[in-house]
Amino acid sequence: FSFQLWCVLVLFLSWSEVHNFQFEELAQYIDSHQEQYVETLREWIAIESDSSDVQRRADVQRMMSVTAEKLRKMQGNVEMVDIGLQQLPDGTTIPLPKVVTAQVGSDPSKLTVCVYGHVDVQPAKKEDGWATDPYNLTDIKGNLYGRGASDNKAPVLAWLHTVEAYQSLSIDLPVNVKFIIEGMEETGSNGLDAMVEAHNETFFSDVDYIIISDCGWLSRRPALTYGTRGNCYFFAEVVGPNKDLHSGVFGGTVIEPMTDLIGILGTFHSNICLYIHFSGSPEPALVSTEEREPPVVSHHEGVLARRWRHPTVSIHGIEGAFSASGSKTVIPAKVTGKFSIRQVPNMDPKEVEKQVCSHLEDVFAKRGSPNKLKVSMVIGAKPWLADIQHPLYEAGKAAVQKVFKVEPDMIREGGTIPVARTFQDVTGKSIIMLPIGGFDDGLHSQNEKISRYNYIEGTKLFAAFLHEVSQIKRD
Amino acid sequence: FSFQLWCVLVLFLSWSEVHNFQFEELAQYIDSHQEQYVETLREWIAIESDSSDVQRRADVQRMMSVTAEKLRKMQGNVEMVDIGLQQLPDGTTIPLPKVVTAQVGSDPSKLTVCVYGHVDVQPAKKEDGWATDPYNLTDIKGNLYGRGASDNKAPVLAWLHTVEAYQSLSIDLPVNVKFIIEGMEETGSNGLDAMVEAHNETFFSDVDYIIISDCGWLSRRPALTYGTRGNCYFFAEVVGPNKDLHSGVFGGTVIEPMTDLIGILGTFHSNICLYIHFSGSPEPALVSTEEREPPVVSHHEGVLARRWRHPTVSIHGIEGAFSASGSKTVIPAKVTGKFSIRQVPNMDPKEVEKQVCSHLEDVFAKRGSPNKLKVSMVIGAKPWLADIQHPLYEAGKAAVQKVFKVEPDMIREGGTIPVARTFQDVTGKSIIMLPIGGFDDGLHSQNEKISRYNYIEGTKLFAAFLHEVSQIKRD
Repeated sequence: FSFQLWCVLVLFLSWSEVHNFQFEELAQYIDSHQEQYVETLREWIAIESDSSDVQRRADVQRMMSVTAEKLRKMQGNVEMVDIGLQQLPDGTTIPLPKVVTAQVGSDPSKLTVCVYGHVDVQPAKKEDGWATDPYNLTDIKGNLYGRGASDNKAPVLAWLHTVEAYQSLSIDLPVNVKFIIEGMEETGSNGLDAMVEAHNETFFSDVDYIIISDCGWLSRRPALTYGTRGNCYFFAEVVGPNKDLHSGVFGGTVIEPMTDLIGILGTFHSNICLYIHFSGSPEPALVSTEEREPPVVSHHEGVLARRWRHPTVSIHGIEGAFSASGSKTVIPAKVTGKFSIRQVPNMDPKEVEKQVCSHLEDVFAKRGSPNKLKVSMVIGAKPWLADIQHPLYEAGKAAVQKVFKVEPDMIREGGTIPVARTFQDVTGKSIIMLPIGGFDDGLHSQNEKISRYNYIEGTKLFAAFLHEVSQIKRD
Repeated sequence: FSFQLWCVLVLFLSWSEVHNFQFEELAQYIDSHQEQYVETLREWIAIESDSSDVQRRADVQRMMSVTAEKLRKMQGNVEMVDIGLQQLPDGTTIPLPKVVTAQVGSDPSKLTVCVYGHVDVQPAKKEDGWATDPYNLTDIKGNLYGRGASDNKAPVLAWLHTVEAYQSLSIDLPVNVKFIIEGMEETGSNGLDAMVEAHNETFFSDVDYIIISDCGWLSRRPALTYGTRGNCYFFAEVVGPNKDLHSGVFGGTVIEPMTDLIGILGTFHSNICLYIHFSGSPEPALVSTEEREPPVVSHHEGVLARRWRHPTVSIHGIEGAFSASGSKTVIPAKVTGKFSIRQVPNMDPKEVEKQVCSHLEDVFAKRGSPNKLKVSMVIGAKPWLADIQHPLYEAGKAAVQKVFKVEPDMIREGGTIPVARTFQDVTGKSIIMLPIGGFDDGLHSQNEKISRYNYIEGTKLFAAFLHEVSQIKRD
């Protein structure tokens, strides 16, 4: 009996030692390749892969090719998947950037993870208020400034470097790793949903878990993300006269579409009111124990609850009205109010749409206006919520513990990552969001950056996570 | 006694015949010079004197020189008055277009009229939806299409041609005629108020009446204009976060400036409400007998009352919010609502300003918002109202009767012509608005035009008016 115990102990220690040894080896390898990783990021940042600007479409396609090429060097089984055409507002079409898929390893005895990422970026110009050229990666005190640095080029590279590190050290990859990298994320992942559906029975069939690293920490402490809010984006169009009118000549003789629009949008008194009006039966507003405030950040509990668990309405602006500087005396003939509701679990977009339309039509009808109102929901992205008891999150916690020696913050995003919900609904796979971006990286803003610390330690986190996830017992 | 009566009769008939003869001669001269008048208008329209575009400032200056040159050929005592510099938003300055003043005749035994007009234009591009090149006068079925045709180049030319016709026929001008022609009317008559004040004791000292022909008829029937509404233009600025925020990440954690702005502007429920709230003691809303509906137009009495006699509020738009097409998820940090109140006589702009500010600050305070509200009145132009019993209007009626054989519509403008009130307040002179533009000329809009009929018969109207006004007994 004592011999058996001894054997178990020896086996455990040796396994544990091997594992520790491997991680240290990987971590050292990653540390020693830091400059090379930064250089590769510099090359990627230099490609202005702005997916919102059709003039830059060739750059986005080039970015996809560069990504594919790097995966090919890793003996990935790479495909560039044609996802069709993009319809432009003028009716013409241009090809969508191809989606890059790849597979490294296909051992049926191992679990298979699929890493999602994107290599397109938001627009950026020096004149917008950048301190540096946004397409020339600039290292200032260990922060790497450049458009797309944190969103999402460095995290994608960190995943590729992770697999490379295993390969270079001839350490057997603990799981098969698939990649799905797109180039239209910043403009709504045009074409991706259909691609995921079309490849559900093929590419996704042997995938066990999906990993998304397209978000950031809440504080200086690493985080695991287990939920996002949804996004129901509405246009409320009020149409009156058949053309814009001079407000001197016609003011007082027509019921103005702007007055109607502002009158009805003015009934969104506050977010509290929204909560009462629109949220059928949202989650309880109280923050649960697991997501209690991380002590290192200055937010108070209520702020996080409002960001993660409460629905909210934002009025973004009005199309068709006078929006320049100066003082134009116009009665706009047709105005479109843009607003969105970030809804939370248990709020179905279809139900939100019904309630919003009915509310606005109701208050509009009460005005007795001769103008025409048309309310439409142009985006109806569902919220996403993961089960934090799932072994994936245990694996995430263990990996964070391994690299950072702390418990991660368990957080949600106030924003929406629609592809998470698509993966969940279409493939039925479990998903984890494993961010490595800093809380102050300035995504979509001027002076976007990722720190060397987050980039390099994040790569180690991914290396550790691959081992931890391999330990999950298949369902 | 019968001899005396006979003498009076003969004198009356011969005076009357001479007058009739002169008018017919003038009318024939004007008719026979129609093509020449159209050609001159073509030359004027070809000059893109858009005062709102600083790149076109040289064209505006050229337009002023062309105007001055034409007046010099009429032996007008012409001056080009320097009115200083225009401050641009970037802090630099450019010279304002010179104001052209002129005097034809200086007989102290005659009355002196001063004709005001402007030769700058609103912007226009073919792409805006013009059927023709806006700077190439195009005759389609007797309508002369071109930017500035009706507003205000043809009316200014009609005045110059009137004086020319008298001169060419060697008919003694019945009054001394002064001109004040500016080049900044379309952008707010920058510099004109100060110029009028500076020249009040000189140029304006011997002026008896001021004539403005910068408006249009209400119908196919000629009109005399005796009032305009004022214009109190407001900016309501709400400032919140120190930069624009992502509505996903921050929605629900900040009180959004847009929600506040729309909430307070939404209290302008309707024009009726405005009337109750803001109009201290405006004129009675009922339309008086004199301005009863002209039978030829389809408006009903209430529409004209609402256009001329009632104050109104128009919300023009919001600066700083999202105004493009598409669906941006932004929380604008600083938004400025633009609205204007067309006020009527007995509504003092200062009082309107006080009431509007106090109303908005009041409803804003009730919201308990942490954001900052700043309301400012950026234009405070007073309404203008003439005494339609004044002999000037009798002269106008007689001239219309002479040329068109009908009674004129007695109308007001819903819009504002601030210079009218300036002339009234600074010089103390009586003013008449004597329009020759058609009701459908499309001022400020695409396909602006003046008809040959209005242009040529309008010139005759001015010729007849100069005689009629000369018959007024000096006060």
